[in-house]
Amino acid sequence: MFLVILIYVCCAAGLLWAILNAREVTSIELSASNPTNEKDVKCIDMMLKIGNKIENGAGAFLSQEYSIMSIFVVFFGAIVFVLVDWIGAKESNRGVSFYATIAFVVGSLTSMICGYIGMKIAVKSNFRTTFKAIDSLSEAFKTAFRAGCVMGFSMISLSLLILITLFEVYKNMFKPVANVADKQSWATLMELLAAYGLGGSCIALFGRVGGGIYTKAADVGADLVGKVEEGLDEDSPRNPATIADNVGDNVGDIAGMGADLFGSFAESTCAALVFVATTVQLIEPHDGKALYFPMLISAFGIVACILSSAFGIYGYEVNTFELVEKALKLQLMISTFLILLTVPVAALISLPEKWEISKRIVDQQERVKYANRTYACISVCMGLISGLIIGYSTDYYTSNAHAPVQEMANACSSGPAINIIYGLALGYNSTIVPVILLALTAIVSISLCGLFGVALAAIGMLSNLCVGLAIDAYGPISDNAGGIAEMSELGEDVRKKTDALDAAGNTTAAIGKGFAIGSAALVSLALYCAFVTRSRGTKDNSIKTVEIIDPYIFGSLLIGAMLPYAFSAMTMKSVGSAAQEMVIEVRRQFRDPRVKSGQVEPDYESCIRVSTQASLKEMIAPGLLVILTPIVFGVVLHPTLVAGLLPGALLSGVQLAISMSNTGGAWDNAKKYIESGKMIGADGMIKGKGTDEHKAAVTGDTVGDPLKDTSGPSLNILIKLMAIISLVFAGAFSRTAYLGKAIGVE
Amino acid sequence: MFLVILIYVCCAAGLLWAILNAREVTSIELSASNPTNEKDVKCIDMMLKIGNKIENGAGAFLSQEYSIMSIFVVFFGAIVFVLVDWIGAKESNRGVSFYATIAFVVGSLTSMICGYIGMKIAVKSNFRTTFKAIDSLSEAFKTAFRAGCVMGFSMISLSLLILITLFEVYKNMFKPVANVADKQSWATLMELLAAYGLGGSCIALFGRVGGGIYTKAADVGADLVGKVEEGLDEDSPRNPATIADNVGDNVGDIAGMGADLFGSFAESTCAALVFVATTVQLIEPHDGKALYFPMLISAFGIVACILSSAFGIYGYEVNTFELVEKALKLQLMISTFLILLTVPVAALISLPEKWEISKRIVDQQERVKYANRTYACISVCMGLISGLIIGYSTDYYTSNAHAPVQEMANACSSGPAINIIYGLALGYNSTIVPVILLALTAIVSISLCGLFGVALAAIGMLSNLCVGLAIDAYGPISDNAGGIAEMSELGEDVRKKTDALDAAGNTTAAIGKGFAIGSAALVSLALYCAFVTRSRGTKDNSIKTVEIIDPYIFGSLLIGAMLPYAFSAMTMKSVGSAAQEMVIEVRRQFRDPRVKSGQVEPDYESCIRVSTQASLKEMIAPGLLVILTPIVFGVVLHPTLVAGLLPGALLSGVQLAISMSNTGGAWDNAKKYIESGKMIGADGMIKGKGTDEHKAAVTGDTVGDPLKDTSGPSLNILIKLMAIISLVFAGAFSRTAYLGKAIGVE
Repeated sequence: MFLVILIYVCCAAGLLWAILNAREVTSIELSASNPTNEKDVKCIDMMLKIGNKIENGAGAFLSQEYSIMSIFVVFFGAIVFVLVDWIGAKESNRGVSFYATIAFVVGSLTSMICGYIGMKIAVKSNFRTTFKAIDSLSEAFKTAFRAGCVMGFSMISLSLLILITLFEVYKNMFKPVANVADKQSWATLMELLAAYGLGGSCIALFGRVGGGIYTKAADVGADLVGKVEEGLDEDSPRNPATIADNVGDNVGDIAGMGADLFGSFAESTCAALVFVATTVQLIEPHDGKALYFPMLISAFGIVACILSSAFGIYGYEVNTFELVEKALKLQLMISTFLILLTVPVAALISLPEKWEISKRIVDQQERVKYANRTYACISVCMGLISGLIIGYSTDYYTSNAHAPVQEMANACSSGPAINIIYGLALGYNSTIVPVILLALTAIVSISLCGLFGVALAAIGMLSNLCVGLAIDAYGPISDNAGGIAEMSELGEDVRKKTDALDAAGNTTAAIGKGFAIGSAALVSLALYCAFVTRSRGTKDNSIKTVEIIDPYIFGSLLIGAMLPYAFSAMTMKSVGSAAQEMVIEVRRQFRDPRVKSGQVEPDYESCIRVSTQASLKEMIAPGLLVILTPIVFGVVLHPTLVAGLLPGALLSGVQLAISMSNTGGAWDNAKKYIESGKMIGADGMIKGKGTDEHKAAVTGDTVGDPLKDTSGPSLNILIKLMAIISLVFAGAFSRTAYLGKAIGVE
Repeated sequence: MFLVILIYVCCAAGLLWAILNAREVTSIELSASNPTNEKDVKCIDMMLKIGNKIENGAGAFLSQEYSIMSIFVVFFGAIVFVLVDWIGAKESNRGVSFYATIAFVVGSLTSMICGYIGMKIAVKSNFRTTFKAIDSLSEAFKTAFRAGCVMGFSMISLSLLILITLFEVYKNMFKPVANVADKQSWATLMELLAAYGLGGSCIALFGRVGGGIYTKAADVGADLVGKVEEGLDEDSPRNPATIADNVGDNVGDIAGMGADLFGSFAESTCAALVFVATTVQLIEPHDGKALYFPMLISAFGIVACILSSAFGIYGYEVNTFELVEKALKLQLMISTFLILLTVPVAALISLPEKWEISKRIVDQQERVKYANRTYACISVCMGLISGLIIGYSTDYYTSNAHAPVQEMANACSSGPAINIIYGLALGYNSTIVPVILLALTAIVSISLCGLFGVALAAIGMLSNLCVGLAIDAYGPISDNAGGIAEMSELGEDVRKKTDALDAAGNTTAAIGKGFAIGSAALVSLALYCAFVTRSRGTKDNSIKTVEIIDPYIFGSLLIGAMLPYAFSAMTMKSVGSAAQEMVIEVRRQFRDPRVKSGQVEPDYESCIRVSTQASLKEMIAPGLLVILTPIVFGVVLHPTLVAGLLPGALLSGVQLAISMSNTGGAWDNAKKYIESGKMIGADGMIKGKGTDEHKAAVTGDTVGDPLKDTSGPSLNILIKLMAIISLVFAGAFSRTAYLGKAIGVE
């Protein structure tokens, strides 16, 4: 009981901190410092108007997206009910048990609420950040960062709060019995609870894919017609697609990414719970106290993040441009350090001293392997530190402060083709460090703690998520703030400040992306291990082996490895066709010459409508591919095939996701490097905007857009979602598998 | 004995057929039809001169490449001796047994000889094809196709001949005993013999990588300076890099590809022999007759291919442009059909009626699984037919007669970036069909015949290799013929004929590439299965499990899946830097204005030298990555880690190789589509050479060059070579594995 209260207290602290920051941000009143200066008044007026338009556009998209998602939740909830709560349940429970269905619906709703909160605070803070930037860099930074904190802390605290509540309620209703093989076991309860993570991830899929298509369709459309054809500036208010572009940042990079990481958080916790529940010595003699260990780490993580973000806001004055990036990176360092201190505490108050993880007969002697508290702590910390290093390696490959991007920028002098070749090679290269770290983390954590270890590593990697999310959300907010400054026709000095904020945001966004992929890989491995553990125990159609040389395993490994490619092809073509529709609409508006000259305000709303409809239409097919493939494989064929499908998708998906994100990020920053005038050509001249080098760099940037903001990040969800679907439906697979049964798959 | 003679007879027939064709080609004498016409005489003179230059350039490259390779063979031969023939052998044999070392050296030499023969006949036939094209399309086609046959038949017949001779000699010296666990078993002999395949594949690696870098450095250099900067035509004799470009076709596409497929052939046979040798009921009561089954299929394949190619040469008149492609595709169909008929014969005369493939206890009852002749035939045919379908699916995605490439060409109107996005998506999409076919082939063949099945499928896929290689070699030969026609300033009508030959060659080259990747995947799976089978039997440091959820397996799967990315990054950057050196050299020559005006002949040799040196330097690092990784993993760490590394590389490498090759091929053909004037823009105008659409297409083509001709095809060898290295060194791994032993890897 003490542990439950402790977790509740941490969540409450996180929520309070979020509310405090939200109040600070929203209490900023826009007023001209000199009300008699007409220009000031006009700018402020403009800011408010644009802020409003972005808020309305984002709201309109989310409400339409959420209504589609609600229909999906109802339908898929019915499938969950039939397959998990009906077919998967023991006979006496049929028709009266709704555990999985309810958990699924609650998870979906939580994900939507978190996305909504994030979007709301982002659209309320972006123009306020611009306003503050008129006077002070430090205040502007604080505004954007506080808004990020609102998103980070409210999301994690809320989801943990709901998860523990659901857990307690289910425990009291279900009354699980330890160490039994029947349907009343702790393990069964945890699997039903895992539907919470499933709900979150389903919403995240549509959020990431839909949001990703939205933002890139708007971006590419705005660039191709506004910038290239009509020669307008970036973020020019005369470009009809410019507001849609800004809305895109909020729905794609904030709501979509938030949902993604919420999914990772919920799933890693659920996976860890399944392992605790299936480890006899963890669940039985210890009163199930060990079940709270994963949640305690996250709870303590909230507190550690409060301390570090408070330091960032109150203890640190960001008054030069260089300090912005340092301040953000310092956040990650401090919170990581603080969490490292809390992990042993969590282990001490919730885990037994040691527990058995395997037993086998070697040379007629019994060999028992034990894990202990120290091992568990090492696994958690290993995840946490790998995550940090993966983030920094992403930074190295994508930031224009380092050699790889600068080399690529220099390659632009040989034309767009060479830029593309270098970029692809850079992306391929950037997989090396993260993949080796992930491999080491998996090897060490599983060797120490069994399959439980990899779930612990995933939780560790995600434990400073509050600060991670705050920094992630900070990026698009300051990007928007810059756009609003441009559109409100504020002076050069304001734009410089917002640019500095934005540049730092780009770097930390790269760190965040590396982190998101790394954690997705660990989470999905943990879920996969849980699925295999679970499916081996079932009586019918159980998985006998996951040996690579088994024909069904190998065949499905191959097909699984192909899925990320098929999925990426779909999403990339979707961006292409959505952008095409946007191009047509923008060109239509420019046929009225008064739009370009600024006499008539462009019809921003119709561009928002085009982007919204196109992206919502295009997100359906790739979404269904991801959701239906494992279900069809499991229900129609056999769980053994699912056991090959998942690692196949994981193995090739991780490489593809890392290389896509980094290639795209590097192209973007190579373009910025050239634009900032830092590139000197072979002839000794500065190669800036308008040169051939810049054009080559723009081509790279455009190719990279769908890679880094649509396909790449969506792959995270592909690998996680397929794994959690398999875990939740494992019981159903074992009772159906119709075709597999007929042809004798084993 | 009857079977041995039968195989010898087939090989002899193949060699005779190759010699016959070689004589037909080389007996063509170039003479002007009208010796008083000065222009004719001048053209013929020119043809001879250029043909000579290409021959000398290719010869110079090969001799330098081969001297580097010879050094490598000596060094690596020493490693093979120490690790396989010394550490891996039983104590009494140490110092006197050289089985593996000799097989390795013989394999290397065979591969070099085959590469040399292919190159030689190609450079002798290319200008003769041009000469024949002056008068007749049909004769020109026959010349190029006959030359291809020389390459295909001499290579396969020779390698089979040497393999069976080596096999017979080793059998008599080694005197293997059936069904024993000690070092005198059949299985051990077959592993030693597998070093033959290892030698072939090592040479192939350097051939593919070095040749690939050579050809693309020359191509990109020639295009960037000659075509783009100086505005010369493709293949203009005034371009200093043009001869190097033509040489590149011979050393990359002919010698490199030949070595690649020789490797596949040798490896798949060796893998099959290992399985036969480890299956008690195949080796023992049947006098080891079953060992000849894999070689019989290849031998009968030679005969079937002789029949179909003879029909192609004598029974079919290619007198219109459309018939060229049809004639080539018909070759594949006929030979496939004929081989299907011979497979049951081979099974009947060499295999027992049925044999046991597995035995296990289920519910206290023994369950035995048998394979039989029919199953073996099904596995072989499944491989053969899958290969054909994979080839045709590659054709669908890369030929401009079909929708995907046409769609991509249309995307060029939105600029190079959209072309690149569409191209990448197309490549990703094109993985679907081949991967599903490979998965099905693996599932069916292993289910029917155990792990032996997948080796059979690989042999089946490669059984019509004579014709496959002939068609593959036909492509670069007619490409060269076209270049020579241009350079000799022959008329438009001759160029049209060689263009038609070349276009058909492009299509069939795509088929060949799909086929090469598919067979590489099956071969490497077969080798992997042989490695696992072998490593499980050893006493020390054996592989206990290849379960995906084992930490060491999963960790090394991840790292393995990363290797193709690291390797591709290296090879792509190599092409970039080699091309850069070529650009500098060509620019240097153009500083003399008389070179461009044609008054002074450019210094072709110095371009050939630049390409040669740059490519030989750049091939070392990626080569060592592939060769050393499995050895270091096995010797220093543990064979279990190798057991994860290989399938990891296979799973991600196959997808990457297919998508790279097809993306590159599609871009190339989209450019050709636009150049041929078939593309109509939205404004109703034809978008041909010189338009923005064409420029966008050229950018795509340049990006695609290293993907389709260097990195993509080299990946084939990466996945095969790592697998055969592991198989040959399996014994050494089990006796070393120093670090793994220390930390207790299991």
